[in-house]
Amino acid sequence: MEPKGIPLNERIIFALDVDSAEQAKKLVKRLESHIRFYKVGLQLFLAGWFPVVKWIAERGHKVMLDLKFYDIPQTVKLAVGQLRGKGVTFVTVHGNEPIVEAAVEAGIDVKVLAVTVLTSFGQEDMQNFFGLRCKVEEMVVERARRAIDSGAAGIVASGLEAPRLRRELEGDYLIITPGIRPAVTDAGRDDQKRIVTAGQAIRGGADYVVVGRPIRDADAPISLIETMQEEIATSLQ
Amino acid sequence: MEPKGIPLNERIIFALDVDSAEQAKKLVKRLESHIRFYKVGLQLFLAGWFPVVKWIAERGHKVMLDLKFYDIPQTVKLAVGQLRGKGVTFVTVHGNEPIVEAAVEAGIDVKVLAVTVLTSFGQEDMQNFFGLRCKVEEMVVERARRAIDSGAAGIVASGLEAPRLRRELEGDYLIITPGIRPAVTDAGRDDQKRIVTAGQAIRGGADYVVVGRPIRDADAPISLIETMQEEIATSLQ
Repeated sequence: MEPKGIPLNERIIFALDVDSAEQAKKLVKRLESHIRFYKVGLQLFLAGWFPVVKWIAERGHKVMLDLKFYDIPQTVKLAVGQLRGKGVTFVTVHGNEPIVEAAVEAGIDVKVLAVTVLTSFGQEDMQNFFGLRCKVEEMVVERARRAIDSGAAGIVASGLEAPRLRRELEGDYLIITPGIRPAVTDAGRDDQKRIVTAGQAIRGGADYVVVGRPIRDADAPISLIETMQEEIATSLQ
Repeated sequence: MEPKGIPLNERIIFALDVDSAEQAKKLVKRLESHIRFYKVGLQLFLAGWFPVVKWIAERGHKVMLDLKFYDIPQTVKLAVGQLRGKGVTFVTVHGNEPIVEAAVEAGIDVKVLAVTVLTSFGQEDMQNFFGLRCKVEEMVVERARRAIDSGAAGIVASGLEAPRLRRELEGDYLIITPGIRPAVTDAGRDDQKRIVTAGQAIRGGADYVVVGRPIRDADAPISLIETMQEEIATSLQ
């Protein structure tokens, strides 16, 4: 009843995009009846460091530490090594094979997720920043393939790219999809150019969806979560 | 007598690549008679967070916080915003124009340095990871140009690329060069593929050089620093 052994209350990873441990704790307490997986990104980690991660983990929740390490392999290995025993389930890294391998070689009980192309990059950025004429999706697939081959447990990829990843890359790797918006609102797209709804993402092959602002800003967050979880459950059938 | 107003004892930024605040403090105490600028990277920041940065800054030294932020613009802006009042002089980011602009827009008194291409990337990685046939140096120049135009105060670039940056990009931006090895040893190249000596880097247009292991592992670190500083002073004339 739980595809891939992932309970429904872990499918939505709530992004704690706040600037203090106090605000993060308030949000966790408000949402934890329904959500058991939280993302700690750069902002909150800088504000609260490991104590806030530990606080979340000690309440029995999982933590995705989304620091997007992108440094030379030896530094990434040592950085990931610092996560030992800190209650982290997922950690994110950018980079090519030696970087992903270094993260995996840190040899700790944390799953390494590779970021392929940030969701803020659209097609027009490919030529400008990467100097490429290829499509975003092609770069995502190629980087994902190399990351999985290098030992990554999963890929952070937009909902638009997940279906292609599932088609072109076999194996039991995870897909985590940020840039999710509720189906029912016209919430702004913010910085994220490649966005879908939770149901679309899961149907397209995502295992987890990352949602922050839409839930935080909702008048009735719990009811929005329930709607999204129903949508996810339906998509998994 | 001090080109660009940078004292000689700030030209070498010592990389505190250690895994505890205690080790970092020991190194700072050992070197601070000669070096007044320290780099705190991912490993040490995860181990010691802002208290270790503050400790260094309160001894009157400068700090380059080398966390290489690479996330969507809004997240980078909020992350850089967390550095307010923390004693940081330089912070590093990866990324395209919106990301660099976001870091600058955080509007705090910290200089934003853009990483162009990690020194662990060699020519053979360009095709494999970026899908490019262009040379590393071309990508470095193009990314540097865009970063400077977006408000970055400087560029992190290897000593091999600094001369080309100075030739092709006008302005008073800073160049900070990692991957430095002493002229007099055959120290291993480690992960860094594009390396030069301190004198070569400064002659080629670098303002600062980042040095870690060669000084840390030297039998006589102070004498090695003095040699490197003489080399730098000569190159500046």
